Amino acid sequence: MKAKEALKALFYPDSVAVVGASRNPRKIGYQVLRSLVEYGYQGRVYAVNPAAESILGVRCYRSISEIPDSIDLAVLIVKAEDAPKAVRGCVDKGAKGIIIVSGGFKERGEEGEKLEREIVQVARSYNARVIGPNCIGIYNSSNRLDTLFQAAERCLRPDKGPLAFISQSGTFSLAMLEWAAECGLGVSKFVSLGNRCDLTEAELLEYLAEDPDTQVIAMYIESIPDGRKLLSAIRRTAEKKPVVVLLVGRTEEGAIGAKFHTGRLAGDYRRAAGALRQAGAIIADTIYQLFDYAKALAWQPLPQGNRVAFVTNGAGPVVTALDRLSEWGLRLADLDAATIQRLRDELPAYTQAEQNPVDLTGSATSSDFKTALSILLESKAVDIIMPFFVFQDTPLDEGIASVMAEVSSRSKEAGKPVVCCAMGGPYTRSMVSKVEESRIPVYESPERALSAAWSLYMYSAVRKRLRSGAT
Amino acid sequence: MKAKEALKALFYPDSVAVVGASRNPRKIGYQVLRSLVEYGYQGRVYAVNPAAESILGVRCYRSISEIPDSIDLAVLIVKAEDAPKAVRGCVDKGAKGIIIVSGGFKERGEEGEKLEREIVQVARSYNARVIGPNCIGIYNSSNRLDTLFQAAERCLRPDKGPLAFISQSGTFSLAMLEWAAECGLGVSKFVSLGNRCDLTEAELLEYLAEDPDTQVIAMYIESIPDGRKLLSAIRRTAEKKPVVVLLVGRTEEGAIGAKFHTGRLAGDYRRAAGALRQAGAIIADTIYQLFDYAKALAWQPLPQGNRVAFVTNGAGPVVTALDRLSEWGLRLADLDAATIQRLRDELPAYTQAEQNPVDLTGSATSSDFKTALSILLESKAVDIIMPFFVFQDTPLDEGIASVMAEVSSRSKEAGKPVVCCAMGGPYTRSMVSKVEESRIPVYESPERALSAAWSLYMYSAVRKRLRSGAT
Repeated sequence: MKAKEALKALFYPDSVAVVGASRNPRKIGYQVLRSLVEYGYQGRVYAVNPAAESILGVRCYRSISEIPDSIDLAVLIVKAEDAPKAVRGCVDKGAKGIIIVSGGFKERGEEGEKLEREIVQVARSYNARVIGPNCIGIYNSSNRLDTLFQAAERCLRPDKGPLAFISQSGTFSLAMLEWAAECGLGVSKFVSLGNRCDLTEAELLEYLAEDPDTQVIAMYIESIPDGRKLLSAIRRTAEKKPVVVLLVGRTEEGAIGAKFHTGRLAGDYRRAAGALRQAGAIIADTIYQLFDYAKALAWQPLPQGNRVAFVTNGAGPVVTALDRLSEWGLRLADLDAATIQRLRDELPAYTQAEQNPVDLTGSATSSDFKTALSILLESKAVDIIMPFFVFQDTPLDEGIASVMAEVSSRSKEAGKPVVCCAMGGPYTRSMVSKVEESRIPVYESPERALSAAWSLYMYSAVRKRLRSGAT
Repeated sequence: MKAKEALKALFYPDSVAVVGASRNPRKIGYQVLRSLVEYGYQGRVYAVNPAAESILGVRCYRSISEIPDSIDLAVLIVKAEDAPKAVRGCVDKGAKGIIIVSGGFKERGEEGEKLEREIVQVARSYNARVIGPNCIGIYNSSNRLDTLFQAAERCLRPDKGPLAFISQSGTFSLAMLEWAAECGLGVSKFVSLGNRCDLTEAELLEYLAEDPDTQVIAMYIESIPDGRKLLSAIRRTAEKKPVVVLLVGRTEEGAIGAKFHTGRLAGDYRRAAGALRQAGAIIADTIYQLFDYAKALAWQPLPQGNRVAFVTNGAGPVVTALDRLSEWGLRLADLDAATIQRLRDELPAYTQAEQNPVDLTGSATSSDFKTALSILLESKAVDIIMPFFVFQDTPLDEGIASVMAEVSSRSKEAGKPVVCCAMGGPYTRSMVSKVEESRIPVYESPERALSAAWSLYMYSAVRKRLRSGAT
C-alpha cells in the first residue's frame, strides 16, 4: 500500500520541487527544471536555489522548507554529501517521491553507499520512496511529467503508448526513448533507476502489471538485489504482459563494469538469466534486441507456432535469414499444395512463387505483395509472415503502404504476426515509417527481423506455460 | 590479360548499350538507361528497343547490330531465353563487358543453367566477360558509370572513396551503398555478381588489389565455386588491403536459400569460413558487421595490440561493452600510475577518472573529453581508444566535433585507432555526422563498436602474419 502511494506521487504528482535548480543552461539543474515547466507537465513546480530569484519564470526558494506548499515529488540535483539533509527537507514538506539525479554515491565506494543507506532510512521513516541516485528520473507520457536533463532539442520524447521501460542506465534509456519516438511506438512510463538504492524493478513491475496504459515492459538490469521478489513479480506480470529483459554481467569484465557504473557486483549471469527466463522474461542479448522485441510484442499478435513464410522482392537478406532460422528456433513453413497452386496461379510469370520463400523478384509491384500476402495469411501451414522489402527497386510502387495497412488488420484477425525487413537510406526509412503507421514492425537487418519474430513465438510459449500453471 | 581488358570495358567503357531499354518508368529497363544518362556518366549511351523512337532523349535502335558505333559494355534486360542471342549481338559489336540484369537463369533450374553456359561460351569466344545474370551490375564512382535500376530518389550513391564492394546480393549492395553514402564513406567500385556465371570474386579481387582507388574490399558471398583461386586472391590482396567477407550457408536452410537465390548450393560453412580466415579474410557474421568493419578499416589506423581504454559521459553502454570485451579478444587496458595521476589531476572533480573506463559523468563537457583523450593517446598502456558519447546530455557542448577532429589527426600519428559509440535520435545522428567528418567511426550500439574495434585488431594481426610469409 505504501509503495503504491509513493508510486502515485512519483508518476502523478500535483506538485514538484527541483532542489538544486540552476540558472546555467549547460547545467543539469537547469534542464531538469525546464523539462518540468516547458514540456507539458501541468502540476505546480517549485525551484530551490539559494542564490537565484527565479529561473525559467519559476520563483526560487532558498531552501525546501520555504516553499509555501506541500510537495508530492522532489527532484534532487545536489552534492552527494548534501543529499541526506535535502531528503529530510523534502519529506518534511510531505514529499512521498524522491528522485536523486546526482551521482557520487555507491559507484564511488563505501562513503557513497553509506549516504544511500542514510537517505533511504530518512525517506522510509516518512513512507517516502527514492528513485536513484545517479539516474535521469521519470517520464510519464500521460501527464508529461518529465525529469530528464536532456533537452527536447537533443532527445525526442515518445507519445503515449504501450511500452513501459525501466532501466539502470540513463544512456540506454535515452536511446530506447528516442527509437520509440522515431518509429511511433508510444511509451506509457519510463523510470531510470540508476544505483537503485530503494525502489526496485520488482516493485515497479507489480505496479506496471496493473497499469492499464502499459502493454509491454522492457528492462535493463545490471544486478539483481532481490532475486525472489523480482522473479515472482516477473511471473505474475508475464502472465498478462510480456516482460523483456536485458541483463549485463555476462563476463567478469562486465560485472566489474556494472560495479563501476551503478555500484553493484552482478552475480552469475547464466544462472540469473536462466532464472529470469524460467520466470517468464524474454531475455534480450543486446540493446537492439531489447527494443526490437518490445516493438514486435507491442504491435503484433502472437503466433500459434514457429512456421515462417517469407515474401520478398530481393532475395539476399532472406538467404541470410534462412541461414539463421533454426538458430532462432523457427522453421521454414512447408507450404501445402493448394497454397502453392494459388501462388502460382495468381502471381505474374516473372515471380518465383512455387515455393517458400516466395520471390517476387526485382520486378515486383505492391499488388504482387498483396496477392502473395493474402494467400499466405489464409494458409494453414503458416504461423508467421516475414516480408523482406527492397524499397529502392523501381517497380515497387508506394501503394505498398496501403497494402500493408490492409495486411495489418487481416493479420490481427488471423492471429498471424507480420514482421518485416528493409535496409537502406532516407527513402527506405520513409517507406518504413509509412508501413509502421499500421503497427507492422520493419527491421533494418535480417537478424533483427528474425530475432523479433522469435520474441513473439517465445512469448506465446511463455504465456501458455504461465497460464497453464506450469513453472 | 584478357580479364583485364574485359574489366577495363566493364569499369571504364567509352560506349554502353542498354539492350531492353523501356519507356515505362516503372520498368527496370527504363531506370538502367536513366542511371546511365542522368547521373553523371559521360560516355556514349545507346538504347535498344524495337518499338520506341527514343527514351530519355536517347535514340533507340531496333537491334544491337543497328547501332552505328562499336560498344564496350552492354547491359541486358531481356528474357532469359533471348539472352544468348542478345549476347552474340553485343560481342559482334565489340562489347568486351556484358552485364545481364535479368533473372530467370540458374536460380530457376537446369534450363536456366544451360542458358548461362551458352552465354559464357559465346562471350568467351570473343574475349568478352559476363557479370550476372540476376544482378544489378556496376557502379564506378570515378566515372559515375551506373547500371543500377534503383532511382537516385530511392537509393543514394556514395561519392568517390576507399571502399570496393562485391556482392552476390543486389539487396545487400543497396544497403551497403546507401549506408556508405550517408556516413560519407566513399566507394571506389561496386559490382553486383548475382548468379556469377562467369566473372568471379577472385578475378575482381586481383583487379581491385591493384586498383589505386580501392583501400578496403568487402564481399558478400553465397557460394565459392573456385576455392583455390579465391583463397589465393584473398591472400595476395589481404597483404596489401583488408578483405572483409560475409559468407552465407551456415545452416542447411541457408544453403537451400542460397540455391534458391543465386542457384548454387553452398558448401560446408565452417570449413569455408575457416579457409577464408586462414587466407587473410576478416569474416563478418552479419551485414552490419560487413559494413562496420569496412568503415573502421577504411578510416582508422591499425592498433599495435588489443588493450582498450573507454571514455564516456554515460556508463551503461560501456558496461555492456565490458561484458563482451573478452568475447571479442580485446582487453581492458590496465592504466599505468602516471596516466591515472594525470587523469586525476587534469579532470574536474565530478568525473570518475582514476580508472579505465574513464567516466566523465553526465556533467562532462567537450573539454573534459579533450583532456581525457589526450592523456589516453599518450599512454603506452593503451592500443585502442573507445569514446562512448551521450550527445543528448545537456552539458556536452558541440565543441566535441572539433575536439574529435584534433583527436583524429593525433590518433593517426600515434597509430591508435579511435572507435566510438553513440545511440539516439536526430540530434545524436547529426553529431555523429560531425564526428565522422574527421573519419572517426561512431557506431549505434556497443556491440557494433566493439566488433569494429576487433576488426582493426584482427586485420593488424592478419597483415603481420601474411607479410611475415607465415600461412
